[in-house]
Amino acid sequence: MKETLYTIGEMAKLANVSIKALRYYDKIDLFKPAYVDSDTNYRYYKDSQLSQLDLIKSLKYIGTPLEEVKKAREMSPSGLLDFITDQEKLIQMQMDNLMKVQQNIETVKKRMERRLQTPSLREVFLWEEEETTIIEMAAHNLKPNNLTNASYSMLKKAVEPISGFLNTGFGAIFPYEKYIHIEDIYYDKIFAPVLSNQMISSLPADMEAEKIHAGTYVYIADVYHPERYICNYHKLMKFIEDNQMTVTSDVYELFGALSYSPDQQEELIIELKVRVS
Amino acid sequence: MKETLYTIGEMAKLANVSIKALRYYDKIDLFKPAYVDSDTNYRYYKDSQLSQLDLIKSLKYIGTPLEEVKKAREMSPSGLLDFITDQEKLIQMQMDNLMKVQQNIETVKKRMERRLQTPSLREVFLWEEEETTIIEMAAHNLKPNNLTNASYSMLKKAVEPISGFLNTGFGAIFPYEKYIHIEDIYYDKIFAPVLSNQMISSLPADMEAEKIHAGTYVYIADVYHPERYICNYHKLMKFIEDNQMTVTSDVYELFGALSYSPDQQEELIIELKVRVS
Repeated sequence: MKETLYTIGEMAKLANVSIKALRYYDKIDLFKPAYVDSDTNYRYYKDSQLSQLDLIKSLKYIGTPLEEVKKAREMSPSGLLDFITDQEKLIQMQMDNLMKVQQNIETVKKRMERRLQTPSLREVFLWEEEETTIIEMAAHNLKPNNLTNASYSMLKKAVEPISGFLNTGFGAIFPYEKYIHIEDIYYDKIFAPVLSNQMISSLPADMEAEKIHAGTYVYIADVYHPERYICNYHKLMKFIEDNQMTVTSDVYELFGALSYSPDQQEELIIELKVRVS
Repeated sequence: MKETLYTIGEMAKLANVSIKALRYYDKIDLFKPAYVDSDTNYRYYKDSQLSQLDLIKSLKYIGTPLEEVKKAREMSPSGLLDFITDQEKLIQMQMDNLMKVQQNIETVKKRMERRLQTPSLREVFLWEEEETTIIEMAAHNLKPNNLTNASYSMLKKAVEPISGFLNTGFGAIFPYEKYIHIEDIYYDKIFAPVLSNQMISSLPADMEAEKIHAGTYVYIADVYHPERYICNYHKLMKFIEDNQMTVTSDVYELFGALSYSPDQQEELIIELKVRVS
């Protein structure tokens, strides 16, 4: 191979990188010119340096951080082979992660679609439900009237590393009984649904992974309004009694935001459901 | 739900985000406090704003740029469902891309491994080769003595969008003839191997996609030195004649960097091979 010197502009053109990138590589000691003119400060590169840029560009292409590229430069061919094998594992991890995200999006979409399909508000209907995994914790005197978004702060913190996704709603559980006033209802548990069915380990001591079992649920949904809450509950009870159904679960209350716009009043959709047989 | 006001510190804790992130979201108009005290400039957030942060965090988790999150906030539930479906497609594209990178790494590794397995330098041996796709162009008076890395600049530019990876070596093609001196050799073509076998379209007019066909190749490798070049070529010829083989291809010359270290003299490994039957 013939040796030749190139200006930074020539080098950039030959290597198909920007002059800015070459200056940056020089600054971070990743790839320095072979020679700098002490009078003009002009950088000059050798023809043989082009292969170094091949390595840098190739490793950049597979997502290697520039600091790692520095190490890779100094490796023997077999060292470089091991290094690339390690990079391959990182790519596999990225793919596994994206696949998990994909699965979670699928579940979220299914739940969003279901909510959009709710036949009509303030009417009772029957719904076949798939099993849902939830994280639950004791409700400590929480009730429909004093529940806040902040009540879910600890649950969200626990669910976040499991699901990534948070906007599939939150819930509460209370016994199925003949309540007269909304003030009579005290939650036993509050919960957050999780998206994946993966093993859930290392939860805080006051939380537990549970299932909302698959089955037929009697179901009513409404845009949350404190005045209408107990009325919807009574509709649910009446439906069950009229149809002589046997209730086989607690009441699950699930709510989710209807709008995320900062310019709009908060609107929550609230669902009440019990499993029947 | 009960409405409450939180300080930025409380809000950060409740939402499991940093105070810095909340300040940044405020600055870029993504998520602003419900109320700012005009005397102290302290920010206050409403409890109901927590669900907005759920959306922001969820979309961040699936890789949505913050600018897009702004749009998503204003969407109806069904608009949001469509939006998430679009995000899903982007994730699929990322996965497809990573899969391509993975396949390219596999091919690069195979080629690197093969080079590491070269039984010994300056000795002729036979090798079964798989088919390789190359991009070639006319050599325009290039010969072993005047070839530079820069000679490959145009080819690299064409190969880069196809393969991403560049450091699998470069090559030249010349007819199999009885050359006496290195000066007698003129390349017909120079080429760059590509990694994938995908359709190669839109090459510059002076380039062409070609194959180095699978088959048995007579093969010699050496660390490049101009003095030894012709000697290696003669060894190759002698082996073919001694074994009364029929040559069924041009001579393929392939070279690659042995070291990418900026502190070392450039070392190239050079391979000469012809297909025989």
